[in-house]
Formats: sequence, C-alpha cells, structure tokens
Amino acid sequence: MKIDLLIANARQLVFFENGQLRTIENGSVACANGLITWFGPAEAAPQEFEPVETLEAADCITLPGLIDSHTHTIFAGSREDEFELKLKGATYQEIAARGGGIKNTMRATRKATRDELTATGLERLRNAIAFGITTIEIKSGYGLSFDDEIKMLEVIRSLRSLVPIDIASTFLGAHTLPPEFSENRQDYIGLICEKMIPYIAENKLAEFCDAFCEAGVFSIDETRTVFETAKHYGLKLKLHADQLTNSGGAELCAEMGAVSADHLETISERGIDALAKSNVVAGLLPGCSFFLHVQYPPVLKMIEAGIPIALATDFNPGSCMTQNLQMIMSIACTQMRMSPAEVVRAVTVNAARALDRNDIGNIKTGMKADFALFRAPNYQFIPYNFAQNHISHVVKNGKIIFSA
Amino acid sequence: MKIDLLIANARQLVFFENGQLRTIENGSVACANGLITWFGPAEAAPQEFEPVETLEAADCITLPGLIDSHTHTIFAGSREDEFELKLKGATYQEIAARGGGIKNTMRATRKATRDELTATGLERLRNAIAFGITTIEIKSGYGLSFDDEIKMLEVIRSLRSLVPIDIASTFLGAHTLPPEFSENRQDYIGLICEKMIPYIAENKLAEFCDAFCEAGVFSIDETRTVFETAKHYGLKLKLHADQLTNSGGAELCAEMGAVSADHLETISERGIDALAKSNVVAGLLPGCSFFLHVQYPPVLKMIEAGIPIALATDFNPGSCMTQNLQMIMSIACTQMRMSPAEVVRAVTVNAARALDRNDIGNIKTGMKADFALFRAPNYQFIPYNFAQNHISHVVKNGKIIFSA
Repeated sequence: MKIDLLIANARQLVFFENGQLRTIENGSVACANGLITWFGPAEAAPQEFEPVETLEAADCITLPGLIDSHTHTIFAGSREDEFELKLKGATYQEIAARGGGIKNTMRATRKATRDELTATGLERLRNAIAFGITTIEIKSGYGLSFDDEIKMLEVIRSLRSLVPIDIASTFLGAHTLPPEFSENRQDYIGLICEKMIPYIAENKLAEFCDAFCEAGVFSIDETRTVFETAKHYGLKLKLHADQLTNSGGAELCAEMGAVSADHLETISERGIDALAKSNVVAGLLPGCSFFLHVQYPPVLKMIEAGIPIALATDFNPGSCMTQNLQMIMSIACTQMRMSPAEVVRAVTVNAARALDRNDIGNIKTGMKADFALFRAPNYQFIPYNFAQNHISHVVKNGKIIFSA
Repeated sequence: MKIDLLIANARQLVFFENGQLRTIENGSVACANGLITWFGPAEAAPQEFEPVETLEAADCITLPGLIDSHTHTIFAGSREDEFELKLKGATYQEIAARGGGIKNTMRATRKATRDELTATGLERLRNAIAFGITTIEIKSGYGLSFDDEIKMLEVIRSLRSLVPIDIASTFLGAHTLPPEFSENRQDYIGLICEKMIPYIAENKLAEFCDAFCEAGVFSIDETRTVFETAKHYGLKLKLHADQLTNSGGAELCAEMGAVSADHLETISERGIDALAKSNVVAGLLPGCSFFLHVQYPPVLKMIEAGIPIALATDFNPGSCMTQNLQMIMSIACTQMRMSPAEVVRAVTVNAARALDRNDIGNIKTGMKADFALFRAPNYQFIPYNFAQNHISHVVKNGKIIFSA
C-alpha cells in the first residue's frame, strides 16, 4: 500500500481516546493524502506499507502537532522599554493610561506597511513552527481603524500562502479604544459594527470575532453589542474575559455561545458555573500571569467543574512576549499545578476545540497528519525540562516541514 | 596588526565600567591570543587590523560570554515522575523522605559508568554552549561515597578536554546523607573530612567545596566542620544556604569567607547584614523557586544592601530542570523585579566573582575573549522575549565555538 509518510518506531505515541491520554511505546503512524491512515504499535504495522518517505523516530516521542489557539503574532515594534517600567513597579493599566500598552503597538503597526508586517510575521511563524506549532490563531487589534484592521487581516491571509501551517484569523477591532474616538466611544463601536464586521464577513477575512472586555477598556454591554453583530454576520466568538478584573466575561461567553473564553484570571464562581454548563472552552494564558506577575486563573477549580482547558501563548509585545508553547506548558504545571497529561491535552485536543476544529489535535485515523516530534523520553519530560525547545521534527498534512 | 578575530559592527556592545552597565552602539572587538586586545565604536577601530577571521555582527548584540556559576550538570537518570508527584502536592522534603530526591539520582549516578556520565555530560555541555555559556561550574554530590564522588569529579575533569569552555569543579560530598550512614552521621562527615577532601585536594579534583546546609540535611555545625577541613586543604567555599528554611547559612558564609552563598530564599535580615559586610557573592537560583513554586529570595533588599548578585541555573533533575540561563534572567526580572541591567551583570561580572575569577565576565582589554552574541535589538530584549534562545554565536578564547 503506497503511503506518503511513515513515522516509524516512535519511542512513544501520545494521543487521546475517550477523553483519556493514551500512549503506545514504540509506535508508528502512516500518513497519506495529508491524513492519518493508520497508527499503532510498530510491530503491528501492515507489511505492505510502501512509504514514499520514512521518518525514523526511535529517539522521539510523537504528539499531535501543537496548536497555539490565542496569539497576537502580527505587530510592529516591541516594548522592552515598558517591560523595564513594569519591573520598576508600573502596572499594565498605568502604562496603558500613559499612552503606552496597546496604543504604543497600534501606532507602530499603523505606520508599518503590509510588506513589513508580512516579513516580521513570516519570521515569527517560522519560529512558531520550530516550537512544534502546526496550527495557530492570529488576531488583528493593533490597527483600530478600518484601513489598519483590514490591513492586519489581509496580512494574516497572505501569510497562509507563505507558511505550511494552518492559520485561524480573528478580528479584534475591540482591543482598545483608539485615541481618535476617546471622546465618543459609541462611534467606535458603531464603526466596528456597521463598517468593519460587515466588510470582514463579506470578504471572509476572519473566522472569529474577539474583544477585550475589561474595566476601562470595553464593558459587558459594549462587548454584547459587538458580539451580536458578529454573530449576525456569521463570525464565531472568542473573548478576552475576566483578565485583570472580573466583569462577568465568562458568563457573557456562556450566554452567547462563544467558542472560547480566554484569560479568566479573575473568573468568579458564577463564571465557572456558567462555563461548566456551556460548551465554551476556557483558553488560559498563564504566560501572561508569569510575565506581568499577576494572579493565575483558578484552573484546578475549572477542571473539577468539567470545563475543557486550552493553553496558548498569548504571544504579544505587552503582556506575554514568547512564542514557546512548551514553556507555557511548564508554567501551567509549575505555577498552576496542572498535570503533564492535562497540559498536553490543553495544547492539542482542547486547543483544537478552542478553534472549533475537529480535524486536528489528535492522532486518530482520518484526522490531519499533523505531528510534533520531541527528543524526549516521555511526554512528562516536555514541561519538566523547561525553557528548552525539545522539537526534533514537525509534520504538517503528512509532510515534514521542520527538522531541528 | 595581525589579530585572530574581529567582531565587527555589533549592533550593541554591552560591558561594565566602574560597576555600571555601558553600551556602545555599532561596536567592534579585536581578539588575539585568546584575549581582548581592543574594543570600541566600529568607526574608531584601527585601520591596520588584519583579522584572520571576521564575525559580522550587525544583527547582533555582543555580551561577555555567559557564566553559569552553579550547576549539577553531571547526573544519571531524570525525575519527571517526582515532578508529577510534586504537582499533585508532595513537597520536595516529603519526596526526599520517601527515598526520592537526591538519593534517587544518587542511585542512578552510582550505577552509571564514567563513560555514560561523560557522554550525557558532554551532550549537556553542548546544550549549555548553545545557550551562550562560556564558563560553567559543575558539582559532584550524587556519588556520596568515596569512589562515586571521585568518579564524578574525574568525569568533570575529563570533560575539560572535550569541550572548549572553562569548567570549574566543586566537591559537594555533603549534598545529603547517604543511606549507608543514616545511623551514623558523624562517620560520613568523618569520611568527607578525613578521606575525600584530602584526596581531592591532593589530586586537584576540585577548586571549591560546597555543602547543602538545610534542616534535615546538614546542620550549621556539620557544615562548619566540613568547611574548616576544606579551607585547611586549600579549597574555596560555596554553600547551599538558607534555601527551604533559614539556618544561618548566609552568616556562616560571611564568617568563613566563602566565595558565594547560594540560594538564600529564606535569608534573614541578619544574614543580609552579614553578607553586606563581607565579600561573599549571593548566588541566586530563582529557577528553583519557579520550578518548586516556593518563595523567591529577597533580592531587592540584597541589592539595596550592596551585596553582589549572581544568577545561575542550578541545573539539576530535582529542583530546577533547565540549562537555559537566559530564561533564568527572565524569571529574575519578572518574578523578583531585577532590572535587565542587573540580570546581565548577574550572569557576567558577578557570576565571574562567584567563581573567584577576574579574567572573565566583562569586555575589557586583557580579559579572555569570551562572548555571547544574541540576535536581539538590545540587551533588555533578552529577558523580555522569554523562553527563546536568542544566541547567534558563541566565542570562547577568541574562537567561534557555536553558530546558530
């Protein structure tokens, strides 16, 4: 039987079956036409496989390709100056109030050309791939004008033809109030709802609509207005919810059927109840808590309540400057006491759910042949040996796209 | 003028002058016979330089080679199983009490042959070099018998001829009480003082003597006994002091003129006073606090008191499983609010002091030509963009020993 790729004799295959993490020691996977056609113990592999390419993986463990389900990968400039201010004691909110924060990156991103944004975006996506990412979500939200938001979304679209991984696109016009609307908030909400969302939907520039629902940024009511419009135009919902202060963002996500409620550092008991009764994924971003040195989300309570947990980098220049999702797994273990199995699930199966995808995030016949191969003795080793990129190979749609 | 290597047009040179961090934008460095012979603004470089090799560094910032002044790089086995137990709530002390912890690694290390320890050690040292390390300290302490401690120290010695970086060797026989002495502590102290230290000194197998002075491990009095013997035999002193509980380790270091007092998570005001009045370097290991999720040392108080701060990985399988010193810089910034300048100093100039070296750790004419070149716009970017290995090139004794 002709197949395109055989991952042969992997030290450990890691996958999920009936919601449980399973492993096969010395396992193989066959891929054809971009999909998984067979996997199991190496000795059980059908003799008649005729692979075009074989990836000998005896030194490696093989996981589903990692999914980074919440990033702000497209931005111009960087903010190490604000990082220094924060270390001296300035809060994230204080820096934002001085015209720093998101507005700082907005100014740089507005000035940047499409080519410049595409070039840095491409470099960053290559870096993400080297960390094992085979699917990534990217948000707009540093344009904050019609032209600049569309520019960002078009850059995201153009990157799809430049890298071999899947890119999900999210419109985050409601990231912060741009300075030109500081005296008339309603007009900006109007611009989002009447001009931006219709145009984006018509041109299929985004799959999701997101907002930063936070004291001093956008209120629950403003968020609801944006979300109602987004839903009307067929966009799915994600939310920056209950990050620095609790404003009932989790409850809004449950009420409106969002795909994911992200952050949740300050989620309330009521918010946990609401998510538990919904299908919303909790998209946690503990790198942010680490970077800003603020509280972590109460993840163990959420797991106990049965809420599916995804983990993502939140890669952005202000509150989490890293693309290393493996490090986020380590932070989730050491700082929030998630188990290694939970963090693996959170960057594969559950991260796929956070992007409303059921064709990625697991090793299963018929799913996309996306894999991250790690030079490690077992999956626990990945978060344990922290701040080390363990990647050996990355496979997307059955093709080797990266070798360390 | 013939020179061996010219680092040309570095985006930024970072060095220390009169205790202050200085930068030169677009700087060059000349190296001959393994030493720095000139450095300054690129346009001021003497015309007559005839470099054998030129390293174009316009994309890079150039720092002194990083120094990892506290590691346990030689060990067999790994302890991701205990990592999982810890995440479920077991403390470091509880795991040690069950025969886990250091004793777990001791059993594996005793069983390992010299060749096995050398092979894994070599792999780890190559990994350290890739993170920008040009000088490293390695401790014994997983042998805990005469033969096995000597085996470890001889492995460390043999690695010197296999890697191009400097390796400082530390005898840590007093790492924990080995099981065969559990009923007669004094006999183990006797073995250390009467057999191990004299043999190690005579055979120049270690430069430093270290001990784990901690409740339930070795007392202040036992540590003093070991240190008195070590000093008598010409070994310099380092100490695992005041890590999990305060036992006056910092004060002992000051009293006995140790080169460094390491850990210090639970140092008292009196300990800070004692160090401030001494020449002892505080060797902080915040990766350990991160990994074990315990308190961080009160570094800002120590800096205020004028104590020189070094930072190191403490790379070991139980309490800090990383070799990424750049990540330790990020942890020190974000979790302890050290400034980027302070963390750079702590892994260069001050780390050299923690190893009693004055020929490394700075860019200065006459010093060793050891450099870490980072693909970054400025030195602040290294801790800011965390969990990313920023290294572009590593230079040791004027030779390029690693290129990314």
